[in-house]
Amino acid sequence: MIRNAQLEHLHVDGDRLRTTIEISSRIGGTKNNGIQRCAATDEDKRMRDIFTKWVRETGCELIIDEMGNMFAVRPGRDRKRGAVMAGSHLDTQKPGGRFDGILGVLGALEAMRSINDAGIELERDFIVVNWTNEEGGWFAPACMGSGVWAGNITKEWAYGRKDRDGKTVFGEELARIGYMGDFPCDHRKWNIETAYELHIEQGPILWKMKKQIGAPRGILCLHWYDVYLEGTANQVGPTPMEGRNDALLAFSEMCQTVNKVAHQMGDMVATVGEIQNYPNSRNIIPSRVHFTVDIRSWDDNHALRAWQLMKREFEIIAERLGCQIRSEEFWKVESASFDQKLVDLVLESAEELGIGSLRMLSGAGHDMSEINKVTRGAMIFVPSIGGRSHVEVENTAWDDCVRGADVLLRCILKSSQ
Amino acid sequence: MIRNAQLEHLHVDGDRLRTTIEISSRIGGTKNNGIQRCAATDEDKRMRDIFTKWVRETGCELIIDEMGNMFAVRPGRDRKRGAVMAGSHLDTQKPGGRFDGILGVLGALEAMRSINDAGIELERDFIVVNWTNEEGGWFAPACMGSGVWAGNITKEWAYGRKDRDGKTVFGEELARIGYMGDFPCDHRKWNIETAYELHIEQGPILWKMKKQIGAPRGILCLHWYDVYLEGTANQVGPTPMEGRNDALLAFSEMCQTVNKVAHQMGDMVATVGEIQNYPNSRNIIPSRVHFTVDIRSWDDNHALRAWQLMKREFEIIAERLGCQIRSEEFWKVESASFDQKLVDLVLESAEELGIGSLRMLSGAGHDMSEINKVTRGAMIFVPSIGGRSHVEVENTAWDDCVRGADVLLRCILKSSQ
Repeated sequence: MIRNAQLEHLHVDGDRLRTTIEISSRIGGTKNNGIQRCAATDEDKRMRDIFTKWVRETGCELIIDEMGNMFAVRPGRDRKRGAVMAGSHLDTQKPGGRFDGILGVLGALEAMRSINDAGIELERDFIVVNWTNEEGGWFAPACMGSGVWAGNITKEWAYGRKDRDGKTVFGEELARIGYMGDFPCDHRKWNIETAYELHIEQGPILWKMKKQIGAPRGILCLHWYDVYLEGTANQVGPTPMEGRNDALLAFSEMCQTVNKVAHQMGDMVATVGEIQNYPNSRNIIPSRVHFTVDIRSWDDNHALRAWQLMKREFEIIAERLGCQIRSEEFWKVESASFDQKLVDLVLESAEELGIGSLRMLSGAGHDMSEINKVTRGAMIFVPSIGGRSHVEVENTAWDDCVRGADVLLRCILKSSQ
Repeated sequence: MIRNAQLEHLHVDGDRLRTTIEISSRIGGTKNNGIQRCAATDEDKRMRDIFTKWVRETGCELIIDEMGNMFAVRPGRDRKRGAVMAGSHLDTQKPGGRFDGILGVLGALEAMRSINDAGIELERDFIVVNWTNEEGGWFAPACMGSGVWAGNITKEWAYGRKDRDGKTVFGEELARIGYMGDFPCDHRKWNIETAYELHIEQGPILWKMKKQIGAPRGILCLHWYDVYLEGTANQVGPTPMEGRNDALLAFSEMCQTVNKVAHQMGDMVATVGEIQNYPNSRNIIPSRVHFTVDIRSWDDNHALRAWQLMKREFEIIAERLGCQIRSEEFWKVESASFDQKLVDLVLESAEELGIGSLRMLSGAGHDMSEINKVTRGAMIFVPSIGGRSHVEVENTAWDDCVRGADVLLRCILKSSQ
């Protein structure tokens, strides 16, 4: 049992957390201060080896499942009661920053070390987890490890995913780096009562509002679409403006439509992030364009209505410019509402520690989107400087990292009783 | 001397012309009926070898200059008088069609064969020419052989151009295929009185107007610009619509500006053909865009005013969306006016042969843009089905090819007197 006085004075070791994150920063570190450490690559293996060593030092058992998810299990007094889990991912975008995901794993590890140092016996098992391939930076899609664990995608499908260059498959690369374990990747093999994920915000809201802790009510839905346009290639000089079927011109109107609809409907973001233009030659009228639309909202139906509206406008534009159009849904994640009692617990813990906090929403997807489907979950956000993430310059103040880990520690202790 | 009766009845051998073009179509032929035969590649070498054989069969001397330009010289009665030259290029886009350039070389070869068959002695030298790398499809820029010949670019600069992948240099590849000759590439080493280039139109005008021969008054100017935008990369989900610096969104407005200005100002075409978007990832707000602008007009100043207008609007858009903008001129070819007496001669020849003709403009650049700077030149256009060119489906009716070669033959005979 944890005495209240103990709880009152228990903090993580900020210096040790910083040192741990700095060691991580060197593995796959880029010259621009970021990290390139995609899942199932040599860099991922090196990070996992070090993480394994750190887990062994805590005295915990390390379980590696078939997807390479790594679970450090600290037994509680009553092993029959559901466990408390905390973690995130150690892989990055290609390239990405030093905190995205990493803070969540190493912050949870630091919480475990601090509990050990204080000699506290918890009622429940406490599990620190490193989920495999949250970013999908080299092998798409994202949230592969947690997705298989939660039963959203199958292990076999995940194994068969190809890298961006189409040369290797995920399962073979995971085995190659030695992290395809034999424990079943299945949440039903575990008894998890509560799950936390500490993470940088990946948006500018906390930073702008000067709050140190965010407790998202849930994660926005994510709808991904692909649009394919087909016009007519022609030499630019001799082809009059009238009667052209310029697929890139059609695209440019559609890109504006996406932004316009998101602005007009509100309560959502919509983005065109990717475009391929063919033949992409200076003096040939573009004949073919592929582009992506990413729509996120707290309300799945609202997002769907936005897509219907965009699609209708796309068709009108395509017809006017004499282009063929085809679109398809590529990926859809419904919005996830977290356990509101746990969200309150995060806010309450921040308040007890005297840290300014904010109830908010998460625009980015996280492992918690998956985990939350099969257990009670909540997230703890810390500010990202300038709201930047998925870029090498991504940064979070050390004090904010420590505050986040302190709130996480407090939540773990409270949920372990 | 040519007797009028002879002139009256002299026609090219249509079947032989077709067979010759069909043989060419197999060298680098693609499965979609096009050709991929970029200058200084193995396919180019194979085509040049066959062309060499054909020239030898006509009994002409073959001169190959330092740029690989190939001149088949048929001596005239009075070798001191300026020669008549006709030709174009045997290289293609990557991939391109079966007629662009090829018709001009093989049509001129057919004219020479027909003159030989008729046993006519011409007053002047008649030269059939194959210019090197008109397309610039693998080694940019275009019109390299004729450009060096006319003194517009230097041989050394041309030799140093890299292929699209940046792996080989033009001069080395030209030498490798065995077509770097030793005759100086310099128009001053020749005495050319008149030059013709038979070519497909590369636009839809003749085809739409149902005319078989076009006589362009000249070639539109060509202004090429590069624009570079810089916004801010961010994860799309957590970044609100307000306050984004989306470089692709800025691009999409600018693409519309280009088209709008061209429509509003008229007498020009303007095109965005190429775009690079970074990081070009579905869930990251685009932070960097490079795109091209191609402006063509009969009036260089008109084109320049259009660019100034576009640039001003670009700057306003960039400022509003919080993006940095930088633009630069990449290439500029001034409009070229052909010799109007020669243009009249083309129209007159078509009329004498009972072929419907049209005075027009050329939107595309040609070797004649270069040659015309140092001698009297004119072009003969034949219709391109659907106005398509620089694509594999590019096509011209065989009858129209023959009509074009007949008009070319007649012009050569008239100019040779």
